[in-house]
Amino acid sequence: MSLNARIDQAVGQTIRRAQRSPAPDRLAAAIEYAVTPGGARIRPTILLSVALACGDPNPRLSDAAAAALELMHCASLVHDDLPCFDNADMRRGKPSVHRAYSEPLAVLTGDSLIIAAFEAIAKTEGAEPSKALELVLTLAKRTGMPLGICAGQGWESESKIDLSAYHMAKTGALFIAATEMGAIAAGHDAEPWVELGARIGEAFQVADDLRDALMDEASLGKPAGQDDLHGRPNAVAEFGVDGATQRLRDILAGAIASIPSCPGEAALARMVQATAEKIIPEPARHRGMTPRIPGE
Amino acid sequence: MSLNARIDQAVGQTIRRAQRSPAPDRLAAAIEYAVTPGGARIRPTILLSVALACGDPNPRLSDAAAAALELMHCASLVHDDLPCFDNADMRRGKPSVHRAYSEPLAVLTGDSLIIAAFEAIAKTEGAEPSKALELVLTLAKRTGMPLGICAGQGWESESKIDLSAYHMAKTGALFIAATEMGAIAAGHDAEPWVELGARIGEAFQVADDLRDALMDEASLGKPAGQDDLHGRPNAVAEFGVDGATQRLRDILAGAIASIPSCPGEAALARMVQATAEKIIPEPARHRGMTPRIPGE
Repeated sequence: MSLNARIDQAVGQTIRRAQRSPAPDRLAAAIEYAVTPGGARIRPTILLSVALACGDPNPRLSDAAAAALELMHCASLVHDDLPCFDNADMRRGKPSVHRAYSEPLAVLTGDSLIIAAFEAIAKTEGAEPSKALELVLTLAKRTGMPLGICAGQGWESESKIDLSAYHMAKTGALFIAATEMGAIAAGHDAEPWVELGARIGEAFQVADDLRDALMDEASLGKPAGQDDLHGRPNAVAEFGVDGATQRLRDILAGAIASIPSCPGEAALARMVQATAEKIIPEPARHRGMTPRIPGE
Repeated sequence: MSLNARIDQAVGQTIRRAQRSPAPDRLAAAIEYAVTPGGARIRPTILLSVALACGDPNPRLSDAAAAALELMHCASLVHDDLPCFDNADMRRGKPSVHRAYSEPLAVLTGDSLIIAAFEAIAKTEGAEPSKALELVLTLAKRTGMPLGICAGQGWESESKIDLSAYHMAKTGALFIAATEMGAIAAGHDAEPWVELGARIGEAFQVADDLRDALMDEASLGKPAGQDDLHGRPNAVAEFGVDGATQRLRDILAGAIASIPSCPGEAALARMVQATAEKIIPEPARHRGMTPRIPGE
């Protein structure tokens, strides 16, 4: 089965569990709306790629971890779009959850998805409890306070921002979770995989800054120019478009170089390369060469 | 150590973990503000009382479970107070989190508390992983969709409400979680404890309806008359004040009768009785006798 099919199946299973009778219909529908059709599913793809690179001996557990990570990502998007944050009317080319279903249901959708994420891991049949528990712990660490995506959003309410902590938490955290959780689900030690996740996260942040600066709302599927509008720190303001593009390539090369030695190292490097192709926005893609994979 | 002291210590430990540097200061402060000083801590008190009735052989795990449950309860209060739900300016006699810290920080506080709850359980030192995992699963079931407090809130966005599912999820869920998790943490089977939790939850809902109808904002520490204002189904509208008070007494007697046979059965019955004294609002207390504990 392809990674995408595995992710869709695992995510679908989790959603159907949340929708079981006697669920309130509209919240059940809003949860599905928030998660499907999916975006690029980059984080769970990385998670499963790392698990496969490590041999993936417990596919049910890695599938559950992938679904959990994707649900968390979707939850953060739903809450970030709320009027009190980005006040975004659109997401992935359709109305945001609070626009389609109401603000109370958007808050509850995010809350329900966060909870469903932990449930997905804890419910995995046949999983070694200590591994499942380590996944719960890692997911919590990379989503909550003080190091996770909640902290990342929290930094935007501070008058003085610790930029490194901010970026690491805001964008890095879920990518680090992806590589750590992929390794854990496959029975490997998480620590050697932190750097790969951190570097991919950093690349993603720069790519996002470039997209926000270079693309229009129609291509983005959400409002453009938000960083400038909200005065958020971003790589394009700091380095210019060319500088940010070069930085993105350097980071991706470093990411590939950081992959720990494992049976599926070469395939994983190709996956990171493919991810890079996807995340570099079209207008910036022609400003230099794509990074080369060592040995290819 | 008293139950209150155990709960305060466990909750404090979890909050301090969430506040560790490099946490954003305001979100860190908002999290503490949302959880301290605590309310009556009724849910974690029930949890620890059930654990003690079952012998409480793993106090670190039952403490973590109690903290997790209280954090979830606080998270739900913070989100329920938001402008798009109750729009409550006050909570526990002080400004609600979104009034004191801002709406974005209130959303993030709730999210962070939900995550910290699961983390508290997963991080318990020396706990048997399968027990910790069962606690994670039970907490998720009783807080998310389709049976938990998120579902309970979700029912309020439906045009046709399944009243039984609504009450069970909205108020019952966290009390069922309390009795189930107390039993699990002590190594007992959760199922025989569901009824006690459900009945306490039902009593609490009726007591809450009475308080909302009979008391003023100053005594409640939050706006009164909200059920009427929002046209929510409630026991006072259905049975009148006397009928609702009698119903409350009947439910509490049933709760006490439902306690499974266990070493600390009598002490637990006294605890439920004491809880009853606390939750029956003053103006209704003199409308009849307090329920008697069988055999006392």
